[in-house]
Amino acid sequence: MPAINRVLEANLHNSINYDPKDVSPRPRMQLAVLTCMDTRISLPALGLKVGDAHMIRNAGGIATDDAIRSLVVSHYLLGTNEIMVINHTDCGLMKASESELHHKIEQEAGKAPNAAVHFHAFQDVDANVRQQLRRLKSHNWLEDRVKIRGFVFEVETGRLREVHG
Amino acid sequence: MPAINRVLEANLHNSINYDPKDVSPRPRMQLAVLTCMDTRISLPALGLKVGDAHMIRNAGGIATDDAIRSLVVSHYLLGTNEIMVINHTDCGLMKASESELHHKIEQEAGKAPNAAVHFHAFQDVDANVRQQLRRLKSHNWLEDRVKIRGFVFEVETGRLREVHG
Repeated sequence: MPAINRVLEANLHNSINYDPKDVSPRPRMQLAVLTCMDTRISLPALGLKVGDAHMIRNAGGIATDDAIRSLVVSHYLLGTNEIMVINHTDCGLMKASESELHHKIEQEAGKAPNAAVHFHAFQDVDANVRQQLRRLKSHNWLEDRVKIRGFVFEVETGRLREVHG
Repeated sequence: MPAINRVLEANLHNSINYDPKDVSPRPRMQLAVLTCMDTRISLPALGLKVGDAHMIRNAGGIATDDAIRSLVVSHYLLGTNEIMVINHTDCGLMKASESELHHKIEQEAGKAPNAAVHFHAFQDVDANVRQQLRRLKSHNWLEDRVKIRGFVFEVETGRLREVHG
């Protein structure tokens, strides 16, 4: 059975216990988290419960324009006032350079992409967190309004380690 | 105490039960989910367990260039072959037009943004899901390689409802 059909069965089952009164669109901790899509990063692993925070996730946990758009919506429309940026050890984007990634995928796809893709490959996870902090802290819709801190999630131990910007 | 400090305490506590052998960077269901950052959307609400899927999340669950980058990494580097696009009812992006959002935030911030922000506001959630499906299905690094289906998560009931592209 396709994965999606199994998800739909589980959703139907779990929805029995879903009560809209238990959840609010406004994050309980007034917190937004920008992190990687990686399977090892989850609410319980980070120390969060359902409803605590907005979760913004992409490959790497990068402060792209899209992540900034989401953080602006989170702060101005839904009242968050702290941001955690979380990258992690053993990230897929650390395993090849930008051009190696591009070459590998273009070769496997057998064609160039419709539009250029920038993968945001990186080699040093601490330096990468600092780069995301710099991007967020220099956005004039965020800089002086939201507290922004950076972390590495160590997939070996499940622990968050702070990286100062 | 700042929210982030409370998260760090909870993370330290939860990491006692974290075992790296329980988790893999490759999603167990070979599934990637693109959805909204909204607090009401969680793994259990959708019908997922930790490790099942890549979670790509932004304001709205929009197939931006950044989301496409993440889905490409997910498929080519980490073996996913199905994508669920999930928007939801009562989304903050449905409550104002693009220009109303821009005006409201610029007024509150007291300054224009460093660079133009496109919020991806929408009015009709089914039509919005179909638009994201079209974007993904027309990307030539995804179109003929990955099964892509679209859904609305009904925050009133916790149920997923399929939207055909």
